[in-house]
Amino acid sequence: MVSLRVGMIGIGFMGAAHSQGWRTAPAFFELPLEVEMAALAGRDDARTASAARTWGWSESTTDWRSLLARDDIDVIDIVTPGDTHAEIAIAALEAGKHVLCEKPLANTVEEAERMAAAAETAAANGVYAMVGFTYRRVPAATLARDLVAEGAIGDVRQVRATYLQDWLVDADAPLTWRMKKELAGSGALGDIGAHAIDLAQFITGQRLTAVSGTLETFVKERPVLAQGSGLSGSAGSERGEVTVDDLALFSGRFDGGAVGSFEATRFSTGRKNAFRIEVAGSDGALSWDLEDLNVLHHYDRNARGDRQGFTRILVTEPEHPYAGNWWPAGHMLGYEHGFSHQVVDLVNAIASGTQPTPSFADGLQVQRVLQAVEGSAEAGSVWTPVA
Amino acid sequence: MVSLRVGMIGIGFMGAAHSQGWRTAPAFFELPLEVEMAALAGRDDARTASAARTWGWSESTTDWRSLLARDDIDVIDIVTPGDTHAEIAIAALEAGKHVLCEKPLANTVEEAERMAAAAETAAANGVYAMVGFTYRRVPAATLARDLVAEGAIGDVRQVRATYLQDWLVDADAPLTWRMKKELAGSGALGDIGAHAIDLAQFITGQRLTAVSGTLETFVKERPVLAQGSGLSGSAGSERGEVTVDDLALFSGRFDGGAVGSFEATRFSTGRKNAFRIEVAGSDGALSWDLEDLNVLHHYDRNARGDRQGFTRILVTEPEHPYAGNWWPAGHMLGYEHGFSHQVVDLVNAIASGTQPTPSFADGLQVQRVLQAVEGSAEAGSVWTPVA
Amino acid sequence: MVSLRVGMIGIGFMGAAHSQGWRTAPAFFELPLEVEMAALAGRDDARTASAARTWGWSESTTDWRSLLARDDIDVIDIVTPGDTHAEIAIAALEAGKHVLCEKPLANTVEEAERMAAAAETAAANGVYAMVGFTYRRVPAATLARDLVAEGAIGDVRQVRATYLQDWLVDADAPLTWRMKKELAGSGALGDIGAHAIDLAQFITGQRLTAVSGTLETFVKERPVLAQGSGLSGSAGSERGEVTVDDLALFSGRFDGGAVGSFEATRFSTGRKNAFRIEVAGSDGALSWDLEDLNVLHHYDRNARGDRQGFTRILVTEPEHPYAGNWWPAGHMLGYEHGFSHQVVDLVNAIASGTQPTPSFADGLQVQRVLQAVEGSAEAGSVWTPVA
Amino acid sequence: MVSLRVGMIGIGFMGAAHSQGWRTAPAFFELPLEVEMAALAGRDDARTASAARTWGWSESTTDWRSLLARDDIDVIDIVTPGDTHAEIAIAALEAGKHVLCEKPLANTVEEAERMAAAAETAAANGVYAMVGFTYRRVPAATLARDLVAEGAIGDVRQVRATYLQDWLVDADAPLTWRMKKELAGSGALGDIGAHAIDLAQFITGQRLTAVSGTLETFVKERPVLAQGSGLSGSAGSERGEVTVDDLALFSGRFDGGAVGSFEATRFSTGRKNAFRIEVAGSDGALSWDLEDLNVLHHYDRNARGDRQGFTRILVTEPEHPYAGNWWPAGHMLGYEHGFSHQVVDLVNAIASGTQPTPSFADGLQVQRVLQAVEGSAEAGSVWTPVA
Repeated sequence: MVSLRVGMIGIGFMGAAHSQGWRTAPAFFELPLEVEMAALAGRDDARTASAARTWGWSESTTDWRSLLARDDIDVIDIVTPGDTHAEIAIAALEAGKHVLCEKPLANTVEEAERMAAAAETAAANGVYAMVGFTYRRVPAATLARDLVAEGAIGDVRQVRATYLQDWLVDADAPLTWRMKKELAGSGALGDIGAHAIDLAQFITGQRLTAVSGTLETFVKERPVLAQGSGLSGSAGSERGEVTVDDLALFSGRFDGGAVGSFEATRFSTGRKNAFRIEVAGSDGALSWDLEDLNVLHHYDRNARGDRQGFTRILVTEPEHPYAGNWWPAGHMLGYEHGFSHQVVDLVNAIASGTQPTPSFADGLQVQRVLQAVEGSAEAGSVWTPVA
Repeated sequence: MVSLRVGMIGIGFMGAAHSQGWRTAPAFFELPLEVEMAALAGRDDARTASAARTWGWSESTTDWRSLLARDDIDVIDIVTPGDTHAEIAIAALEAGKHVLCEKPLANTVEEAERMAAAAETAAANGVYAMVGFTYRRVPAATLARDLVAEGAIGDVRQVRATYLQDWLVDADAPLTWRMKKELAGSGALGDIGAHAIDLAQFITGQRLTAVSGTLETFVKERPVLAQGSGLSGSAGSERGEVTVDDLALFSGRFDGGAVGSFEATRFSTGRKNAFRIEVAGSDGALSWDLEDLNVLHHYDRNARGDRQGFTRILVTEPEHPYAGNWWPAGHMLGYEHGFSHQVVDLVNAIASGTQPTPSFADGLQVQRVLQAVEGSAEAGSVWTPVA
Repeated sequence: MVSLRVGMIGIGFMGAAHSQGWRTAPAFFELPLEVEMAALAGRDDARTASAARTWGWSESTTDWRSLLARDDIDVIDIVTPGDTHAEIAIAALEAGKHVLCEKPLANTVEEAERMAAAAETAAANGVYAMVGFTYRRVPAATLARDLVAEGAIGDVRQVRATYLQDWLVDADAPLTWRMKKELAGSGALGDIGAHAIDLAQFITGQRLTAVSGTLETFVKERPVLAQGSGLSGSAGSERGEVTVDDLALFSGRFDGGAVGSFEATRFSTGRKNAFRIEVAGSDGALSWDLEDLNVLHHYDRNARGDRQGFTRILVTEPEHPYAGNWWPAGHMLGYEHGFSHQVVDLVNAIASGTQPTPSFADGLQVQRVLQAVEGSAEAGSVWTPVA
Repeated sequence: MVSLRVGMIGIGFMGAAHSQGWRTAPAFFELPLEVEMAALAGRDDARTASAARTWGWSESTTDWRSLLARDDIDVIDIVTPGDTHAEIAIAALEAGKHVLCEKPLANTVEEAERMAAAAETAAANGVYAMVGFTYRRVPAATLARDLVAEGAIGDVRQVRATYLQDWLVDADAPLTWRMKKELAGSGALGDIGAHAIDLAQFITGQRLTAVSGTLETFVKERPVLAQGSGLSGSAGSERGEVTVDDLALFSGRFDGGAVGSFEATRFSTGRKNAFRIEVAGSDGALSWDLEDLNVLHHYDRNARGDRQGFTRILVTEPEHPYAGNWWPAGHMLGYEHGFSHQVVDLVNAIASGTQPTPSFADGLQVQRVLQAVEGSAEAGSVWTPVA
């Protein structure tokens, strides 16, 4: 079988998740190309070498550009912080490498536009780019998309999407790069709100055209990490400004007539990863919760009157998307399986010479929604078109 | 409209519940007879008079037999402890009064047999007796029965019924009459296990023919209430023997081929009133929980493969049993509504001259199951026929 | 005992609910005054007389003003449509009657202001007015308020309140008065959104000071009921305009620093009465759902690290608000019990000469929030102060 | 780092699960030995080679004994059907290999006894054997054990364990080896009931000493697979006898005074993998469900009265067993993670020269419980000691 040789850039938490996807997908899915985990690039030599060994990459380097120069690398997987995505992805595409880029695509619309342009140029040459909104590939979320597409809930009218976390509830949690706008782009909005936007659009098949949004920073100053204390540094007495949002609330209008409400927050005490989405249409509704990720709830308004209700579908049957390749029915999948499914879909797209989704254009559109929310929030929440 | 004049005997907790049924049913259901809450009988003069005033009974008396002698009483409602049921019910039936008797029908099979015989004789004269298994009349439970009866889940093969409470978990809770076999008949078995037996048989339409049972008393001695301390008495240092079960576990075979497991306990820490029943058949299943009493879960094995799952039916629609007479869909009913439904069904049966259910014969059969469980438990849990 | 003689005006669905409250409260709670259900007023003679008989009112009349003229009426309970509240309530207060007025207080802020002024004048003379936001009196909701008040969740930062129904999903459902702005005031916003506003403010102890809102009408024309067909009329071929909202989405800022999101809709397919509220603070969170109304979920951020989670409190213990007067622990209450609790609180306030809550001033404030939402929606959702 | 070289025997469904454990554990846990997936043995040459390639084993063979003869294999992992466990495990131990053997340990007590004896002998020489009850290693189950051990729920009095599946509900599903006693040992009892027994004993720290059991076969004959049709064979018209149980119900007494009820079934329509266990003690209770495997419910009877309830602990925090090595809090684990944890615990035990658990002696004890259940069922469900 022909090999698909992958180089990954970045060694943080997302590196572990992507590595698990590359390593595991071939064990459960028949892929048209043989995946080779060729090389890992990171900034720190020792840590990168150690990560490569732990995660199963054959080599490591501190020079990510060297991966682009190699003939024996076919795909570049980017899991670095968002402010570096544009530079790496564009260079990789120009070097003729397929690119998988972790979400959000970029920190600004301007970067995302350049990336999407580069991806369009590359695609004309059979080189493809994809952005990593993996929650699309949770089987229950994919099933939701399929049910909407086949008309199971009729015309979609309402969307309710909340992504609730609570890891900033402690007002004395230290100020990290994630709370600085220049590094992180935005706070809860871009980090987890972007997931809500993408998934809502994916499931409904509709795109947001306008938004009205509010951003709130509950804790405006946090302790600065003491000088030189590195990763394990404890907070000192100095306080610095939090320049991103703790909470993003917005309403949106979709091009198919639906209206949606969105909330992304890091201050919903007790909620660890409560990404919930409900879609209601003229003939039914669907509801999903990441904290119960194997389940999709489906309401069929055309069922017999005395038997209507939300049906709890355990999305682990052979008929369900992706599920049949794993375990028998009723055996649960977890967070990381979406990364394997992402690999499966990307490898199949590359092998067949078709554009994988979500494309960089899709990622750019999400970025434009984020920008419109920020614009609306700055303008007193007035409705703002998605440019 | 012709009146139906009711006399109730007993002023405990169940008296409050039955009174609420008599008082409320006419406000929500069109009844063929006008209910009159004529008289209340209790042992203590002042307390009975006070209860009558509070609950809406026109008169009170300490002589329950006087109610039987009156021409202007049509129904006797018995809510006294189980050891008095036989005497009162038989006398009332012999006096030509319809009888509603709270469950369990009696403390022994012998008593229950005499009661059932008296009821049969009375029925021949158009005088009817009914036993108060009100959980049958929770709309979701009635719907479950209806769905089984119309074949929605095919042939019933399995039943799982648990009734879990925890009010005896404290080993120093005082010894009351409910823990003495001579007064209470049995412990968790007769008190709440009887509900599980009745509802399992009601929903499945099958009867238990044999059982294998185990009874357990975890706390074998409890503090005796100090002399003369009355109702509010605190426990003294003396300890007395608990002569009833804290836990009843039994398996049963039904005459339609189903096999069931049953558990009734007062020691399931944290469970307050968790009466749960699940019935599985060749084409589907049904599941219900008293702590979420407005909901019935229904699994349809013939639904499309990728959409199967338990459907959470909110049993508050106009199509549902009893529900349309109350509030709009989605407005919840509570514990006490079953007592109103019991009144509705009893009044309709009396008005139409038909036997209400569950009859005393039905109550006797439950008593025989209880006896068989006790017999099996004494004989090392060997399978024992329901005589 | 001194009597409190009640006259109720209105014979719709809310009349049944209020009657149940007046009839039932004295059977379960020791009240300082004896409640007499003296008279019921309605427009149609026969229907009013029938309702009085069914619900337990001693007399009936078609002249509501006659109730105000009687010396033997102490309280006027108003359950008519919102456009009549102001006239009746003001007249009743001026006649020296205590008033219980169903929510929403009025259809406009102007009406509500006159009502609040009348109430303030009356209160100076020991005559009290109360508005009927009964969901405050679901034991779990009251417990939520108590826990916030004692600091159990620290400083409240976030509120999420959704009230979801689906009874207008069918685009061919007929046009009724509830869909006409001149009669109903607004749509989902005033009907159920008002509940969300009141409960959020009640639980948090904070008041909304500004809102950003969006209103949507999904189905803009509906079949007009055929002429002369009355209540049971079927829809004809003519179509009329829906002039109220099907969906109200709004964000709000509270005077204590919290930020909230609100949704009220009649188009959330499959959701019958899903009124859900979650309140998150610096030390914990609370979550409640009307479809599971006996339960309050509580998260304690100060619990031991490995044991944190939302605790499902079954609010039926003697320690819980109102609950001890009903049934043993674990026996569920339903929708209508809030109406009994409302009677209890009103009667106690009247007997002790103190202002019952929520007052007309409270009802007016909710009305101002509704008006601000409408104003914001008309102005492109820009943040709008609650006047 | 020193290597631990593993040879696995068996290429069925369990082979995929174990391979995933061996491949993934080193990527997330710091292990004291470097795991090498050295060789895979199976019966069919091509299929075994293919499985080795897919799952990541360096070599493959059809001669499992050859693995025992090699010096460069340290561990034998047995995932073949139960009737071959004894032969392979004993030979491996005698060859000085550590052994991991999938559950159930064997098909009979006699085999299990020989295996346990061999394991005891080997352990004296520092060679260890472990049986694969992986559900112990779901973080929530391990946490349950820890909480019981530290006294969080006091003295354990009750256990309720049900393992519900429905894959035999279709009466025309073909007769496979799993329904023949000589190959499978037993039906639901040994396949999934064994899990319930092991986990109940693991969590409570108590051992079953006696049981009363019932076995039921609902569908006594099933279509025989047509000759020569192999794996994909469809059922012919011939029918053969099902010689194992479809349902096992049993009660048990534990050596610490607890009483438990157990159910294992393949006929609980709609339940795919509903392994649920609840443990109630004098001070609290714990409840867990495999279909919601990341969650443990904990009831603390010593919490403040108005705040008691089951707390839904999301067992994904760094403080929780195993969880900190995976993803951030709130990111779910799935079925297969238990297999990684099993590898972690086995490798650590081997490296430190200590006996891993559950040992073969533990597996033997489970086998004795299964035998006692069968014995009781044959003797009319009479209580039967665990020999």
